[in-house]
Amino acid sequence: ARRGFPEAVYCEGKTVAQVAAIAAAVRDRFVLDQPVLERPVLDPSVLDRAATMLFTRADSEQAAAVRQQLPEAVYDEAARVVAWPPDPPDPTGGLVVVAAAGTSDLPVAREALLTARYLGRPAELVMDVGVAGLHRLLGRLELLRSARAIVCVAGMDGALPSVVAGLVAAPIVAVPTSVGYGAAFGGVAPLLTMLNACAPGVAVVNIDNGYGAGHTAAQIAAPW
Amino acid sequence: ARRGFPEAVYCEGKTVAQVAAIAAAVRDRFVLDQPVLERPVLDPSVLDRAATMLFTRADSEQAAAVRQQLPEAVYDEAARVVAWPPDPPDPTGGLVVVAAAGTSDLPVAREALLTARYLGRPAELVMDVGVAGLHRLLGRLELLRSARAIVCVAGMDGALPSVVAGLVAAPIVAVPTSVGYGAAFGGVAPLLTMLNACAPGVAVVNIDNGYGAGHTAAQIAAPW
Amino acid sequence: ARRGFPEAVYCEGKTVAQVAAIAAAVRDRFVLDQPVLERPVLDPSVLDRAATMLFTRADSEQAAAVRQQLPEAVYDEAARVVAWPPDPPDPTGGLVVVAAAGTSDLPVAREALLTARYLGRPAELVMDVGVAGLHRLLGRLELLRSARAIVCVAGMDGALPSVVAGLVAAPIVAVPTSVGYGAAFGGVAPLLTMLNACAPGVAVVNIDNGYGAGHTAAQIAAPW
Amino acid sequence: ARRGFPEAVYCEGKTVAQVAAIAAAVRDRFVLDQPVLERPVLDPSVLDRAATMLFTRADSEQAAAVRQQLPEAVYDEAARVVAWPPDPPDPTGGLVVVAAAGTSDLPVAREALLTARYLGRPAELVMDVGVAGLHRLLGRLELLRSARAIVCVAGMDGALPSVVAGLVAAPIVAVPTSVGYGAAFGGVAPLLTMLNACAPGVAVVNIDNGYGAGHTAAQIAAPW
Amino acid sequence: ARRGFPEAVYCEGKTVAQVAAIAAAVRDRFVLDQPVLERPVLDPSVLDRAATMLFTRADSEQAAAVRQQLPEAVYDEAARVVAWPPDPPDPTGGLVVVAAAGTSDLPVAREALLTARYLGRPAELVMDVGVAGLHRLLGRLELLRSARAIVCVAGMDGALPSVVAGLVAAPIVAVPTSVGYGAAFGGVAPLLTMLNACAPGVAVVNIDNGYGAGHTAAQIAAPW
Amino acid sequence: ARRGFPEAVYCEGKTVAQVAAIAAAVRDRFVLDQPVLERPVLDPSVLDRAATMLFTRADSEQAAAVRQQLPEAVYDEAARVVAWPPDPPDPTGGLVVVAAAGTSDLPVAREALLTARYLGRPAELVMDVGVAGLHRLLGRLELLRSARAIVCVAGMDGALPSVVAGLVAAPIVAVPTSVGYGAAFGGVAPLLTMLNACAPGVAVVNIDNGYGAGHTAAQIAAPW
Amino acid sequence: ARRGFPEAVYCEGKTVAQVAAIAAAVRDRFVLDQPVLERPVLDPSVLDRAATMLFTRADSEQAAAVRQQLPEAVYDEAARVVAWPPDPPDPTGGLVVVAAAGTSDLPVAREALLTARYLGRPAELVMDVGVAGLHRLLGRLELLRSARAIVCVAGMDGALPSVVAGLVAAPIVAVPTSVGYGAAFGGVAPLLTMLNACAPGVAVVNIDNGYGAGHTAAQIAAPW
Amino acid sequence: ARRGFPEAVYCEGKTVAQVAAIAAAVRDRFVLDQPVLERPVLDPSVLDRAATMLFTRADSEQAAAVRQQLPEAVYDEAARVVAWPPDPPDPTGGLVVVAAAGTSDLPVAREALLTARYLGRPAELVMDVGVAGLHRLLGRLELLRSARAIVCVAGMDGALPSVVAGLVAAPIVAVPTSVGYGAAFGGVAPLLTMLNACAPGVAVVNIDNGYGAGHTAAQIAAPW
Ligand SMILES: Nc1ncnc2c1ncn2[C@@H]1O[C@H](COP(=O)(O)O)[C@@H](O)[C@H]1O
Ligand SMILES: Nc1ncnc2c1ncn2[C@@H]1O[C@H](COP(=O)(O)O)[C@@H](O)[C@H]1O
Ligand SMILES: Nc1ncnc2c1ncn2[C@@H]1O[C@H](COP(=O)(O)O)[C@@H](O)[C@H]1O
Ligand SMILES: Nc1ncnc2c1ncn2[C@@H]1O[C@H](COP(=O)(O)O)[C@@H](O)[C@H]1O
Ligand SMILES: [Mg+2]
Ligand SMILES: [Mg+2]
Ligand SMILES: [Mg+2]
Ligand SMILES: [Mg+2]
Ligand SMILES: [Mg+2]
Ligand SMILES: [Mg+2]
Ligand SMILES: [Mg+2]
Ligand SMILES: [Mg+2]
Repeated sequence: ARRGFPEAVYCEGKTVAQVAAIAAAVRDRFVLDQPVLERPVLDPSVLDRAATMLFTRADSEQAAAVRQQLPEAVYDEAARVVAWPPDPPDPTGGLVVVAAAGTSDLPVAREALLTARYLGRPAELVMDVGVAGLHRLLGRLELLRSARAIVCVAGMDGALPSVVAGLVAAPIVAVPTSVGYGAAFGGVAPLLTMLNACAPGVAVVNIDNGYGAGHTAAQIAAPW
Repeated sequence: ARRGFPEAVYCEGKTVAQVAAIAAAVRDRFVLDQPVLERPVLDPSVLDRAATMLFTRADSEQAAAVRQQLPEAVYDEAARVVAWPPDPPDPTGGLVVVAAAGTSDLPVAREALLTARYLGRPAELVMDVGVAGLHRLLGRLELLRSARAIVCVAGMDGALPSVVAGLVAAPIVAVPTSVGYGAAFGGVAPLLTMLNACAPGVAVVNIDNGYGAGHTAAQIAAPW
Repeated sequence: ARRGFPEAVYCEGKTVAQVAAIAAAVRDRFVLDQPVLERPVLDPSVLDRAATMLFTRADSEQAAAVRQQLPEAVYDEAARVVAWPPDPPDPTGGLVVVAAAGTSDLPVAREALLTARYLGRPAELVMDVGVAGLHRLLGRLELLRSARAIVCVAGMDGALPSVVAGLVAAPIVAVPTSVGYGAAFGGVAPLLTMLNACAPGVAVVNIDNGYGAGHTAAQIAAPW
Repeated sequence: ARRGFPEAVYCEGKTVAQVAAIAAAVRDRFVLDQPVLERPVLDPSVLDRAATMLFTRADSEQAAAVRQQLPEAVYDEAARVVAWPPDPPDPTGGLVVVAAAGTSDLPVAREALLTARYLGRPAELVMDVGVAGLHRLLGRLELLRSARAIVCVAGMDGALPSVVAGLVAAPIVAVPTSVGYGAAFGGVAPLLTMLNACAPGVAVVNIDNGYGAGHTAAQIAAPW
Repeated sequence: ARRGFPEAVYCEGKTVAQVAAIAAAVRDRFVLDQPVLERPVLDPSVLDRAATMLFTRADSEQAAAVRQQLPEAVYDEAARVVAWPPDPPDPTGGLVVVAAAGTSDLPVAREALLTARYLGRPAELVMDVGVAGLHRLLGRLELLRSARAIVCVAGMDGALPSVVAGLVAAPIVAVPTSVGYGAAFGGVAPLLTMLNACAPGVAVVNIDNGYGAGHTAAQIAAPW
Repeated sequence: ARRGFPEAVYCEGKTVAQVAAIAAAVRDRFVLDQPVLERPVLDPSVLDRAATMLFTRADSEQAAAVRQQLPEAVYDEAARVVAWPPDPPDPTGGLVVVAAAGTSDLPVAREALLTARYLGRPAELVMDVGVAGLHRLLGRLELLRSARAIVCVAGMDGALPSVVAGLVAAPIVAVPTSVGYGAAFGGVAPLLTMLNACAPGVAVVNIDNGYGAGHTAAQIAAPW
Repeated sequence: ARRGFPEAVYCEGKTVAQVAAIAAAVRDRFVLDQPVLERPVLDPSVLDRAATMLFTRADSEQAAAVRQQLPEAVYDEAARVVAWPPDPPDPTGGLVVVAAAGTSDLPVAREALLTARYLGRPAELVMDVGVAGLHRLLGRLELLRSARAIVCVAGMDGALPSVVAGLVAAPIVAVPTSVGYGAAFGGVAPLLTMLNACAPGVAVVNIDNGYGAGHTAAQIAAPW
Repeated sequence: ARRGFPEAVYCEGKTVAQVAAIAAAVRDRFVLDQPVLERPVLDPSVLDRAATMLFTRADSEQAAAVRQQLPEAVYDEAARVVAWPPDPPDPTGGLVVVAAAGTSDLPVAREALLTARYLGRPAELVMDVGVAGLHRLLGRLELLRSARAIVCVAGMDGALPSVVAGLVAAPIVAVPTSVGYGAAFGGVAPLLTMLNACAPGVAVVNIDNGYGAGHTAAQIAAPW
């Protein structure tokens, strides 16, 4: 809970045992004074905001290991995120809208969405609004214009934030994804596109970093 | 006149003397039987199409040297192109539309435009239709949809062809430009964007290669 | 069927279940008014051209899943393409010739070939005409010169389009492939070669993008 | 004034004449009904916020050309910015703090600072707080913690935003600069550092893009 | 034992049989005059320092193969290092401190630590002192300042040596790690950061090269 | 005269004074026993082969400085080479043929040609045989097939050695040049093409390194 | 047998069935007039040199498939090469020496060695002469100086050819290998080192291309 | 004087006025109580070690500006370094040897040499010991082996530290230089070579960073 933010554990590259140990430590920090197996789950509402834990990039085995220690935790398979306590805080602050170009961008987009919600923001997801089908994007303009912060997720040409930035006044956090092949170079192509977006108001996070984008958007949409 | 196409001389890196010598050779090949200084300029209409000469990337000094040898040649300063004979052939075949994202892309866009015209196509230029100002692009849709081939010129994020390809049925020749700074990397950013355009029907030429784009578009818009 | 083109589903990175669901949706969109399991397959000839579906980069498991939903679909294993309805439209427009440098380029070349055919063009494949064996290439010159659009597929040095462009008047869509090792850098070497082809009339698509090349060539060979 | 924002003219690569023409157009748009040479300058307060014009990356000759058309415009030489009308709007919204690692980062930092101010935010500059002299950074912590949005400017190792993000709760817009040599690769080194900042809440703009950073920070610090 | 240093065998890419053969050769070189299976292990203290063998990047199977030939050898699983004789020499010279940014950097950090110890230096490990949690780093300042040479291990932004170099007077050997994803580019991001560290006194070894860093630090902390 | 080869001085980046000093030292080493200003120039034939000096990449000012010290030296402006003694040794060994794709490759091609000659080989130059004009290349096949070693010089697509290697049995030394723009990346594109030449028998030297290519070809064409 | 050279089949990326089919075709081309299963193997000496077949980069399964079709073929597991007929031609021409820096470079070095031998040259292998152990290299100087062509194989720093070229007069074909990790970038580091070798007489082939190096060296060591 | 080290001012990119202002500040800090123009220069011996100032990468104009403020300062033109006070401290600690491959590496080598001396170490320079002339290097072995720390400076192939590290026991600080062309990529080639040096004990600083190398070597050769 550095700086009062919820803590996130990056699971990729960690063994199931390591992830389980971290989950056990969380449990022991927040659920005291009772034998491990019998003690009742605390009412999440009594835990302060900073007690929220996210396990990102968790595969199903890692997720199961977390839930053995923290049974009430929930696993969002598409986003590869385990969250505990299961319910995000009641939303406060401005709206975060996460817009994704294609269905392959879903894991990254949902990671951003859940992160924003577990940091306490109202957040909505808009899928499949890539710039090659402009009518779909223009059809969601009203929602996009109601946002205090927008996360744009796109791979391949990464053109989505350039177009959205020309249509809205909110700041945009752009997330390039590793979706694509060949000269997409694992996300380098959309990364460069986004850094060169010709409308101002676009700032960029690392390739596939939905967590970082959702976090930043939540910080933008309300002061911490 | 390889394969019957007009010949183009790439002037960058050539000395003024070298360019002058090439222009003199052109004159001598097509304007025969008379002493060099007095002989009248031939009526260009008697020269077959393949006799057309383009001098690309010509600075003003090189242009002057060409025109000393071929006085009726014309110099388009914005495009850095010298053409001889001065008038392009009567246009035949489908329409070529050259669309450019920003005013800094003008030299490349005009190079494409003139090349298409001197290869014998009707060709139109649409400026300042970058994707950050979508309304301007949408305002030119009718013209774009009337083209048999489209050249899209853009630097920085290079997003223009991705958007246009979603709106028209004609094939697109995309030209990345070296316009931009920092992570534009001299045109690499838009080059990668264009190679990863998410709508099919986009093929790409070298950075700043307006000549190649106009040439390819002319070949598309009518069989040679 | 964006812009009236056949729809293509890029299967790489999609689960078998996701691909099956898309195939089912196709079936439901075009094969109406009957219970899902019993209803007879429609005569493909009543479907308009835009109803054609291509599933590209499909492995055998994904292909089987498509064919469970659309039994009359055909799978070209070399091209990794599933097509439905099984027969391409009657060919119209100019000829598309796909020329490939080596046998390892076959998957990409066939993907281009089938794409052009399912978009309605007559299309022929010329294999093993790499520039190190010039006589084989020169032996196919007549066919190449009869094309309205040529797709050149090559990995490693990617020199094929440079040579072909000097021999024909048709525009060339060049496809670099990831064939090679070491300093081929997964297709970067032939990509750069093709972007720098010294004859004009060559435009380039992404590494291994046979689909995009066949699509663009079909658009060139006949207006849509 | 796209989306109601002040307009900015990027002067690099434009001729003095082109810049002058743009300045003249601005004058003609906002200073009406009088002969060009005599007409009095309008009270800037009657112009709406969107009438503000910034000329960025302007050298002294370009700046002089602007001021010939718009005599009351001011030129900040360090930032290479010409602004018109001369005074920024009365500040509203949260505080923007621009923190720069070294004195060579000054031009980029001031460009960010002025942009934020001319977009209407209160904004402060903190210089010379590079991470190699941690005490200087820690000495400015109170100011940094009072910001609603922070712009971090750094070249070379680009480590500043990583450290600041661990100390504050506000979102950070990180600007890599081209300061450095050798393996700094014109700003690539700090760009990568910033994209990989190990604390969340950092989003990145293009190398040397002080304008984009200041703009984004202003959008964060108050809704538009 | 080139130049009198202990010998190190880099096991990655070697087969189990090859590693076993090297271990057998070591045994035969130092454990003479007796039938292979019965002969007693020599008292390691009679072996000179240069007789020490390290097997780096050894997986558990390779480690087992070494220990079949050299039964008293020890395997440090976290560091992936097998050492023989099992005990490092009595420490002499200045202190080496190995500081690592995150827990994922542990394998590289321990490889450095063990190498320094088996070269005969006193050496300590400081974990989890990444710059995003500055208080943890500042809490270990006394130990860091007592070192004659410091090894800094960090992935992602690689900012650790920049900060440490501003706080201590000892030379720093910086090791970038391949920890991270996307624009970390397998360790390139922290490599560039470290080469551009803004405080002098930082020299860099290859990505993940804990062995080289520990070796160099040991050479610094005492003359050989 | 390392290994008995003629010595070469690389002049780029050296001041005129430094080049003059080297030339003076050459003179003093080979032209003895006389006061510096008056002493007559030795008959070059008395100097052994290893006494030959090449000054490569010399501009006209540097060339003049050399000739002030060694008046009989000759300057080839196209090749930027000063040679002393002026005449190459009588040619021995097999023929070296230098083939260049375009006229812009001339400086590099002539540097290779002269180097081979001053190392004592018979050597011929074939210009303008780029692969886009195959007939010109095929027209010089007899000469190419009579070579013991071939130097292929090409920029842009660098395709020349791939084609030549398929037509001849002699080994080829390929020299990429920095001729081109955009995605030629200063010679990287032809460098990669050449490293990936699909016919064996092609080895590559550094971009623009005509000297190294001519040297290697001379070593191939006769044992030293 | 292009240009009269033995034919080589690159097996990587080919299926076992494809490799088997090629081997069968070889058999059928050279072993005629008899039923496939019973016909006796021809005496290899009656086959001309060009009939030699090499299957490079063959794994054990592919090798077995070749030997089912061509039972007398031999498989060199270290080199991953299958050769048929089993014995190389009687050696003619100058000596080829293959020198390798480390044991991990063995596969590439042996591929070069066998290629040179099957092209008909006498060829010797010198292992483990990396520049960090200069005495080992200097101990083999006599053999190296007796070569007409030298192949230098090295990964990591790739420094071997720079040193060897300063010691011998024969031309060097340098082969970078993908041995190493981190900033070796899969062979890019030694590739660049070799292209920049400071002694002339070094030409470079693709990363890990032992076949190409051995082929070129054989062409150098005797005219074809 | 951070951490008690002499202060260094990096002059590249600073105006003459800025450099002069820094020099004036130095003067005012250390030379008090007297009118600026008349006051006598302090005896340098009364200034503590940390008062030493280096101005690196200073051109002659910047050097003159410094000497106007600090008249006793000395300018080493080859190293582009201005030092004040003029004499380095009496040398203490182990010997630093700076070894450079070629004469073009001189500026970087002398910058390292002077830095080591002004930090108080005895330091010697060894020029022209590139690995292509091994005998020259071996001729200086005794001096190299007497060093407590070695700085190796090399461009192009950057092979020097690999060879030296195999011959000495002292740690090596390797400095790649931007000397070279083409695939030297401004110093990237030797940088990678050095990071991949196959002997341990080599650590690397930024391209052309003689200052950083000399500083680190001085820290190694004696504790601060
Ligand atoms: N998906 C993610 N991408 C990037 N950073 C993350 C992600 N998930 C967690 N983090 C960050 O990584 C830190 C935890 O790293 P670790 O201690 O290795 O689990 C957290 O404080 C987060 O700032
Ligand atoms: N602006 C240009 N960009 C790319 N290629 C060009 C350009 N102008 C001319 N060319 C090509 O370069 C060839 C002439 O090159 P050169 O013989 O060096 O003048 C022509 O045949 C064209 O194919
Ligand atoms: N982890 C490591 N990273 C880099 N170099 C190593 C490592 N371990 C051993 N080495 C070096 O590699 C050499 C041994 O290489 P090899 O002969 O292939 O086992 C040793 O002399 C060491 O200098
Ligand atoms: N044009 C060139 N390109 C590459 N290397 C060269 C060239 N000319 C000379 N050399 C090499 O550079 C060495 C001389 O370098 P230097 O001592 O700096 O003049 C010679 O021994 C040659 O091996
Ligand atoms: Mg997109
Ligand atoms: Mg654009
Ligand atoms: Mg090819
Ligand atoms: Mg910094
Ligand atoms: Mg770190
Ligand atoms: Mg070429
Ligand atoms: Mg080596
Ligand atoms: Mg060197």
